[in-house]
Amino acid sequence: MQGSARAFKFVAGAAGPWSILSCEAVRGDPLPRAARLQLLRGDAPVSDSTVAWTLRGVTSNERYTARREKELLQARQESLGRAGSTRAALIPVRKTAEWWALPQDERRAILEERSRHIAIGLDYLPAIARRLHHCRDLGDEEPFDFITWFEFAESDAPAFEELVGRLRATEEWTFVEREVDVRLARDGRA
Amino acid sequence: MQGSARAFKFVAGAAGPWSILSCEAVRGDPLPRAARLQLLRGDAPVSDSTVAWTLRGVTSNERYTARREKELLQARQESLGRAGSTRAALIPVRKTAEWWALPQDERRAILEERSRHIAIGLDYLPAIARRLHHCRDLGDEEPFDFITWFEFAESDAPAFEELVGRLRATEEWTFVEREVDVRLARDGRA
Repeated sequence: MQGSARAFKFVAGAAGPWSILSCEAVRGDPLPRAARLQLLRGDAPVSDSTVAWTLRGVTSNERYTARREKELLQARQESLGRAGSTRAALIPVRKTAEWWALPQDERRAILEERSRHIAIGLDYLPAIARRLHHCRDLGDEEPFDFITWFEFAESDAPAFEELVGRLRATEEWTFVEREVDVRLARDGRA
Repeated sequence: MQGSARAFKFVAGAAGPWSILSCEAVRGDPLPRAARLQLLRGDAPVSDSTVAWTLRGVTSNERYTARREKELLQARQESLGRAGSTRAALIPVRKTAEWWALPQDERRAILEERSRHIAIGLDYLPAIARRLHHCRDLGDEEPFDFITWFEFAESDAPAFEELVGRLRATEEWTFVEREVDVRLARDGRA
């Protein structure tokens, strides 16, 4: 948790440190083409005629993670912004109304007991760093429910491909009705 | 769930069908005094110089409710807007950072296995109708985490008093750091 600064914006357009390598609709509508991406903190609106699209989300409490899983995650995960993390992925997802109508215990059973979502993510720590942002409860007009931002070294790009492949093959993913997969790169930092 | 219209605003000031009978800070800062309250749908901003305060929230999926509990709730609960519901309560609550840092299984254990929050609410159905609105993930500046709106007949006001008294005596409520209790009345409708 980051205290009172939990709101983030992903702004695609002509500016930003991240170069967009690809932007593919995995399911449902695509996002408009853009050259670069910047991450901004806070929930002030962005006014810039070069902006192709903006997605916003808020980091929040865990919805499914149990104590033992949280401890494993905390022991293994590394933070965003590592010097060697020159690759990133931005994956916004929207789930179906059927998913959201399920009670908490059934969503947990599908997500972890049957789909191993948390366990699969653990397999790729600390290489693949990530931050989950929630959008579904921002208001009536949000196009996605979640945005996950991943950072990793170029040499871990094949591992990232395996991670998203495993997640997309799960029962949980049968409840995904829209998903876009944006891949990005930036210059390495000393 | 209400499709795409999940955002609500509670606007206190000079206008609205509900007359504010009392507005007490149970814990933490109070809300400014006002005469009347209106409920609005949607997330457009309100611009009216007579407004004393506005709270906003979004209805969402259940965070803790299991299948058997959801079925009991759906079988017993009645909707808002009943002709006989001439009394209401608006109770915004904020929980501590410690609460939000707990993993999902521990929050569930405190809320239901130890505090019986869902079971207590069931005891007062269908008399006390309610709608829960989430605010914590709206952005960085929200004063509360939840807003619950309750409606009931004047003759059920003592039962409502008992309901909130039982909830405030639970272990869950030791994690509440701000709570305001607004009581309201309106003319009966044929």
